[in-house]
Amino acid sequence: MKILVLNGPNLNMLGKREPDIYGFETHEDLVNEIEKLCSSMSIECQVLQSNHEGVIVDKIQEADSTVDGVILNPAALTHYSYAVLDAVKAVSIPVIEVHISNIHGREEFRRHSVTAGAACGIIAGFGFDGYLIAIRALADIISQKSDDVKLNVV
Amino acid sequence: MKILVLNGPNLNMLGKREPDIYGFETHEDLVNEIEKLCSSMSIECQVLQSNHEGVIVDKIQEADSTVDGVILNPAALTHYSYAVLDAVKAVSIPVIEVHISNIHGREEFRRHSVTAGAACGIIAGFGFDGYLIAIRALADIISQKSDDVKLNVV
Amino acid sequence: MKILVLNGPNLNMLGKREPDIYGFETHEDLVNEIEKLCSSMSIECQVLQSNHEGVIVDKIQEADSTVDGVILNPAALTHYSYAVLDAVKAVSIPVIEVHISNIHGREEFRRHSVTAGAACGIIAGFGFDGYLIAIRALADIISQKSDDVKLNVV
Amino acid sequence: MKILVLNGPNLNMLGKREPDIYGFETHEDLVNEIEKLCSSMSIECQVLQSNHEGVIVDKIQEADSTVDGVILNPAALTHYSYAVLDAVKAVSIPVIEVHISNIHGREEFRRHSVTAGAACGIIAGFGFDGYLIAIRALADIISQKSDDVKLNVV
Amino acid sequence: MKILVLNGPNLNMLGKREPDIYGFETHEDLVNEIEKLCSSMSIECQVLQSNHEGVIVDKIQEADSTVDGVILNPAALTHYSYAVLDAVKAVSIPVIEVHISNIHGREEFRRHSVTAGAACGIIAGFGFDGYLIAIRALADIISQKSDDVKLNVV
Amino acid sequence: MKILVLNGPNLNMLGKREPDIYGFETHEDLVNEIEKLCSSMSIECQVLQSNHEGVIVDKIQEADSTVDGVILNPAALTHYSYAVLDAVKAVSIPVIEVHISNIHGREEFRRHSVTAGAACGIIAGFGFDGYLIAIRALADIISQKSDDVKLNVV
Amino acid sequence: MKILVLNGPNLNMLGKREPDIYGFETHEDLVNEIEKLCSSMSIECQVLQSNHEGVIVDKIQEADSTVDGVILNPAALTHYSYAVLDAVKAVSIPVIEVHISNIHGREEFRRHSVTAGAACGIIAGFGFDGYLIAIRALADIISQKSDDVKLNVV
Amino acid sequence: MKILVLNGPNLNMLGKREPDIYGFETHEDLVNEIEKLCSSMSIECQVLQSNHEGVIVDKIQEADSTVDGVILNPAALTHYSYAVLDAVKAVSIPVIEVHISNIHGREEFRRHSVTAGAACGIIAGFGFDGYLIAIRALADIISQKSDDVKLNVV
Amino acid sequence: MKILVLNGPNLNMLGKREPDIYGFETHEDLVNEIEKLCSSMSIECQVLQSNHEGVIVDKIQEADSTVDGVILNPAALTHYSYAVLDAVKAVSIPVIEVHISNIHGREEFRRHSVTAGAACGIIAGFGFDGYLIAIRALADIISQKSDDVKLNVV
Amino acid sequence: MKILVLNGPNLNMLGKREPDIYGFETHEDLVNEIEKLCSSMSIECQVLQSNHEGVIVDKIQEADSTVDGVILNPAALTHYSYAVLDAVKAVSIPVIEVHISNIHGREEFRRHSVTAGAACGIIAGFGFDGYLIAIRALADIISQKSDDVKLNVV
Amino acid sequence: MKILVLNGPNLNMLGKREPDIYGFETHEDLVNEIEKLCSSMSIECQVLQSNHEGVIVDKIQEADSTVDGVILNPAALTHYSYAVLDAVKAVSIPVIEVHISNIHGREEFRRHSVTAGAACGIIAGFGFDGYLIAIRALADIISQKSDDVKLNVV
Amino acid sequence: MKILVLNGPNLNMLGKREPDIYGFETHEDLVNEIEKLCSSMSIECQVLQSNHEGVIVDKIQEADSTVDGVILNPAALTHYSYAVLDAVKAVSIPVIEVHISNIHGREEFRRHSVTAGAACGIIAGFGFDGYLIAIRALADIISQKSDDVKLNVV
Repeated sequence: MKILVLNGPNLNMLGKREPDIYGFETHEDLVNEIEKLCSSMSIECQVLQSNHEGVIVDKIQEADSTVDGVILNPAALTHYSYAVLDAVKAVSIPVIEVHISNIHGREEFRRHSVTAGAACGIIAGFGFDGYLIAIRALADIISQKSDDVKLNVV
Repeated sequence: MKILVLNGPNLNMLGKREPDIYGFETHEDLVNEIEKLCSSMSIECQVLQSNHEGVIVDKIQEADSTVDGVILNPAALTHYSYAVLDAVKAVSIPVIEVHISNIHGREEFRRHSVTAGAACGIIAGFGFDGYLIAIRALADIISQKSDDVKLNVV
Repeated sequence: MKILVLNGPNLNMLGKREPDIYGFETHEDLVNEIEKLCSSMSIECQVLQSNHEGVIVDKIQEADSTVDGVILNPAALTHYSYAVLDAVKAVSIPVIEVHISNIHGREEFRRHSVTAGAACGIIAGFGFDGYLIAIRALADIISQKSDDVKLNVV
Repeated sequence: MKILVLNGPNLNMLGKREPDIYGFETHEDLVNEIEKLCSSMSIECQVLQSNHEGVIVDKIQEADSTVDGVILNPAALTHYSYAVLDAVKAVSIPVIEVHISNIHGREEFRRHSVTAGAACGIIAGFGFDGYLIAIRALADIISQKSDDVKLNVV
Repeated sequence: MKILVLNGPNLNMLGKREPDIYGFETHEDLVNEIEKLCSSMSIECQVLQSNHEGVIVDKIQEADSTVDGVILNPAALTHYSYAVLDAVKAVSIPVIEVHISNIHGREEFRRHSVTAGAACGIIAGFGFDGYLIAIRALADIISQKSDDVKLNVV
Repeated sequence: MKILVLNGPNLNMLGKREPDIYGFETHEDLVNEIEKLCSSMSIECQVLQSNHEGVIVDKIQEADSTVDGVILNPAALTHYSYAVLDAVKAVSIPVIEVHISNIHGREEFRRHSVTAGAACGIIAGFGFDGYLIAIRALADIISQKSDDVKLNVV
Repeated sequence: MKILVLNGPNLNMLGKREPDIYGFETHEDLVNEIEKLCSSMSIECQVLQSNHEGVIVDKIQEADSTVDGVILNPAALTHYSYAVLDAVKAVSIPVIEVHISNIHGREEFRRHSVTAGAACGIIAGFGFDGYLIAIRALADIISQKSDDVKLNVV
Repeated sequence: MKILVLNGPNLNMLGKREPDIYGFETHEDLVNEIEKLCSSMSIECQVLQSNHEGVIVDKIQEADSTVDGVILNPAALTHYSYAVLDAVKAVSIPVIEVHISNIHGREEFRRHSVTAGAACGIIAGFGFDGYLIAIRALADIISQKSDDVKLNVV
Repeated sequence: MKILVLNGPNLNMLGKREPDIYGFETHEDLVNEIEKLCSSMSIECQVLQSNHEGVIVDKIQEADSTVDGVILNPAALTHYSYAVLDAVKAVSIPVIEVHISNIHGREEFRRHSVTAGAACGIIAGFGFDGYLIAIRALADIISQKSDDVKLNVV
Repeated sequence: MKILVLNGPNLNMLGKREPDIYGFETHEDLVNEIEKLCSSMSIECQVLQSNHEGVIVDKIQEADSTVDGVILNPAALTHYSYAVLDAVKAVSIPVIEVHISNIHGREEFRRHSVTAGAACGIIAGFGFDGYLIAIRALADIISQKSDDVKLNVV
Repeated sequence: MKILVLNGPNLNMLGKREPDIYGFETHEDLVNEIEKLCSSMSIECQVLQSNHEGVIVDKIQEADSTVDGVILNPAALTHYSYAVLDAVKAVSIPVIEVHISNIHGREEFRRHSVTAGAACGIIAGFGFDGYLIAIRALADIISQKSDDVKLNVV
Repeated sequence: MKILVLNGPNLNMLGKREPDIYGFETHEDLVNEIEKLCSSMSIECQVLQSNHEGVIVDKIQEADSTVDGVILNPAALTHYSYAVLDAVKAVSIPVIEVHISNIHGREEFRRHSVTAGAACGIIAGFGFDGYLIAIRALADIISQKSDDVKLNVV
């Protein structure tokens, strides 16, 4: 099983950026945690971060034919990027949207997500653990699918 | 470890109510799945469903001194019950909000949550599996807490 | 044929509450008028009033397996109770929404109904007669249904 | 007793227009159903349809001195014609607003009625039967009035 | 000098329609008052009333080549008829908008005028006198114009 | 003189819930303060708290025939419960709305009250003292009334 | 007969301020035109201009007992001064609101008037002539009043 | 092949109305250009203009059985006429909406179209050429259709 | 103890202005009632009224060093004066906002207060008695403060 | 004559992405159709697709000095990219905006275009044919221009 | 060179008012800093502060003929005073708007400026230094102007 | 001292793009002016322009460890790029936002800035001079900082 973890703008600043909201651990720490879990689950995993909306869209599209599922944290793009929404709609592999913080408990503009409607599931507020939770959930969805059990969870 | 799973209005109609959105499995099936998982994790679990906002508020308050954490699906109350919001704010145990469907991909009014801001995490769109994912996440949060690891995930 | 007439918050105050809007007749008078009509039509009828949203939801759910149709006046709940909306959506028997006054000619907030979208028909502005009109309409719908004439009136 | 049934824009397309919403019966079928009922109730009835807002307004005004009551389905005009609203306000005979479909369960713009506030009652969602229900209700109102029982149903 | 007085929907109901707002005098009374004034000022005047938006637009267009100015009371059309707005914009003769009542002191929807922006002046709240005031003002504007004094009052 | 003090959802959590906003004193402390004052003023007083909107509505209705006035803190219900609004409108005894905190200085949603319009007076921001102020004000209103001095202060 | 003409903020800048909108004539020119007309009509007239909302309110209040009517151009205050609105409501003499330009044809914020609802009439878009029109209209209203003909035109 | 070109309110004023927006050519010029093109394409074409919403609706309905497609410029009706929207929805022949100017680059209210959603295509901003472009596009759609190639362009 | 009572625009018109809302007693009556109470409580009190926002701001600022607390009725300024809001924020003495009528039960614009958020408490709807209630409450707050009991009532 | 066809985010997924909306043909098919037409018209044409807003802006800018006109389908960027709007405004060659589907008949957010205001024309709803229509229209505009006929079509 | 520095409501409370936002230095300190800079630049400078909107308007108007430019901090008036907006529009000397804090990073209402549109430049967020920056910028603008270099900075 | 000047989309078109708003000087001219000033102040300066949001975000992040401060003109990104907002929040060096034109005096959408809240200061409306003003202000802030004077200007 192969998955892609895709992180949007400024997530490379984790540990430096507003630590009261995002904690003191860095993006590298996050990558390590993800890789450790994936390794234990025999999942082949790639973690990418980009500040470029276009790269996020490119990578979601490419993932359709190269991996079995995507964990996506669109970061600030969550709130205005209809391009990311359309990219998620355009692929047939499962995409899970993750947010480190509880976006419903922050500024007004962060409570509205334009991308979430196209994801098959959303996980928010669990810190870095949210990625680990999402990976396990994604693995289940992919397994069910390959077992030819049709996916009726939306 | 003890937890409470609290389901809001009309979730007792699962299996009967709009199966294209909520699936064909019943609330009883859900309870069985939850109990099987909890049993395997040695978690003492109670699952309650009520159509009464007041009961939901009462149970969240009582939970503060009787269990270690709550899984809450406020159902329709999600979209207008400031009373449930205040109840979640009023307790000190962790509360995870779960939604069976992806509320961001449905009618406009279902995209706005007045209760989510007070939860420590949100999981939506994974069907019944969302409860199982939430239970594992809640168990982790409670364990970390009892290990005196301070909870900084919000 | 069996039907349920379900009245929401403060309708038990009829005759006392704002008589320029709701008239001087009481809830008891309403029950009498309804029972007289039902008796003449050989309909078995129960009239319930509750100030509790949860009870309204419970009763709509129970009605699904105990009666052939529901006359529902959600009163103030009309304007915010998504729980009542979901309850009406969750049952398969016909539900007709009734309002004593013309809600479109009153305060701004009364012009918006969150529950009406799920009813099979709405009758408003006819005073107590609205219930009698609704009962006759409901009886027709139920009869057509039992005659195996498919209901295409939405 | 004389009444006028007044149908607004595009209702002459019934049977052809969006049959999943409006059914397969035509405007002529509707006229027949109405005339059959009126005949059985000894009501003199005229059914008019116009795509012209001005004609609708003219006819409501004329009705004030020629008939005892009006059944009005303003169709699309429901949502923007303050001229129709003012016409209904300007006459002293009772006017009942009818909608074939449940306007609360359709597109956002159809949920707001600018004309309904001036009607003495509204009936929506019962298909063609809505007209028959309205005629019976109108006959009752007119009778009460001529019995010198003052009309307090608003 | 020739002018046109153009009255919109339901103004023919003056004296009958909501007399607490519009008074007890009829449209005929209004015509008489206007004609008396015009006669005394040697103005050739035509007063037209129509419930048809299309007629109002037609008449404004025709006026461009047949009269020297227009007094326009669009009545309910004031609040939604962009067609009337465009008609006033399309002609080069002066158009004065008149309202019998003070539209700013009534229902919310009556406070917004979509047509007024194209008029050269607005007079509201003076009852029938508003027409007389407007006729005098219009006569002044027309005279100034024919005196080749350029009109810079907007 | 008899009065009812009615507290809405989560006010039983006083002292535990967000003490920076609501203080460290408990609901029991509040009851004691109220009872001490009432006793000193020879007022018979009952203090009730409920998390159930329906109970709040029931109690307001019952109060109409059992006590001389009501002190109501609808808590979270303030912001959406049209049922509580209608209940206050339905009774003829004076109702004073009290808020512990200054609701105008908190989150946006707390600045809008749907219930306050029906109260005869509002007192907010004085902490527990707000109840004591309200009781004295209510006693004055009740006395004036029984002195047959008509209350024209709204 | 005595009247007061009251001009709000920046109207003393007439002739200097945005001449494409307000023309090249000055406030002094305006005063002269007003005085010439009033003199010819034997009206005692005072023209005041102030940039102070408080002075505008003071003068409206004083006018109640010193003059027979007021011509008011609130200028920028039109769009936000509820204090001016309340002042006009508080006096019993007639107040006519005048605007030099057609406020409906300018920036969005100028299309909304918070003061106009309390005036007995509004005249806008006629340049300086608007004041002369208003004076004649005011004189008529005052005369009718002193003839004991009650003013029912609003 | 037969088509109808239908022009809404005030388009007969082309050449006279706001030439900086609509150009100096007249409606007659437009008819000539359209007829020349249609003649060269062997299309039978009728061009109609009306200021009456009702006529526009009538003509769209009639077109359903008399021509193969419609070019519609609803002009001002674009922005509020749900009656025109419903008429376009009610017919089964293709309807193309044309605007002379780029409605997205003008006043706010012109950027919102209530009618466009029902058209099979929209062409805006090309001046009179927009009609010629639309005619060619419509001819293609009609041809494809008659070639039994199913129309999937919406 | 010294306090300032500060009344905003048009409150000097009490007794004359809209007596159905504000009663028939005058501002002088109000001053007398206030002085009688203050005298009985040995409070030195000054009552000021001004129609000038600037004076209201000046007086609030001066009060900071000359009195122990302020009773403020900003009247119309309540709804738009951010200058008054900032003045209340800028002083360290307690300020209580009073409204004679229940502002939540009146026109839409009166339900929104821009100044209340900075006050330590709000009292509305009790007529003139509201001032007396506020004075007693203010005296309590000031006493507690001088008793070195920290003020935690917000 | 040289033109550029510029396609925005996710249009490279044509044929794969939501075929009920966009059809089963691929971006390559689209390129072929465009090239065939251009070849037949002796137009030198380049078709570019990018998921990067920055690339779209770069290419529009470069086009100003390298080609004679642009066909632009901003796809999702249509609804939020003020950068694309500014780019279109910054160039002097004609730009035509094309949409494959009828954006007025889809989700609410797709009905609002922030980029269209700067285009010289818009074509929507014709599927791939929209590009062909646009190319012919663009060729006409460019020809007229080079014929020194000034373009007055906006 | 002569300039006026004009400070709006509550800026005289600097050092006392919310020091976490506005710092601990007083208005006198500000005046000293300004005077020191002006002296060093040989600029004749007057610093005025007023809590009265009317005084602010008066002073802006007077400045037109007495100084060469104005530095204006409208403080709270920024957010609602169309009178100040109109005053700035009415004068021909350059006006620079200054804010001590970054108004875009504070409460929602402070992010909207009704006055800034008329200023020739805005400087916000630099504390007292903002005034010094503004003075240097203003001096440059005035110099350029007197050098007969036309001012194209808007 | 080292600084970065970062210019967003379309600023490379200066001199070509809408010269009535942005002037006739080019981006190269701007770079020259900036370099001349920096050279005179012994500031090492780099000026970058990009049409790519992602590049703007990348460069802001890199700047955190390579320069002492940033001058940022986000251009069109100002109005929707939460990614740029988050980037400015994520760095600890001072960032000053500059706009060439007065964004408050242009189209509605340009009056709202989503990025400005995170900047330490904003300068708008001074043309190219705004950059020079900003550089001097930035140099002061950086100097104060390195002088260990804590920066309290927000």
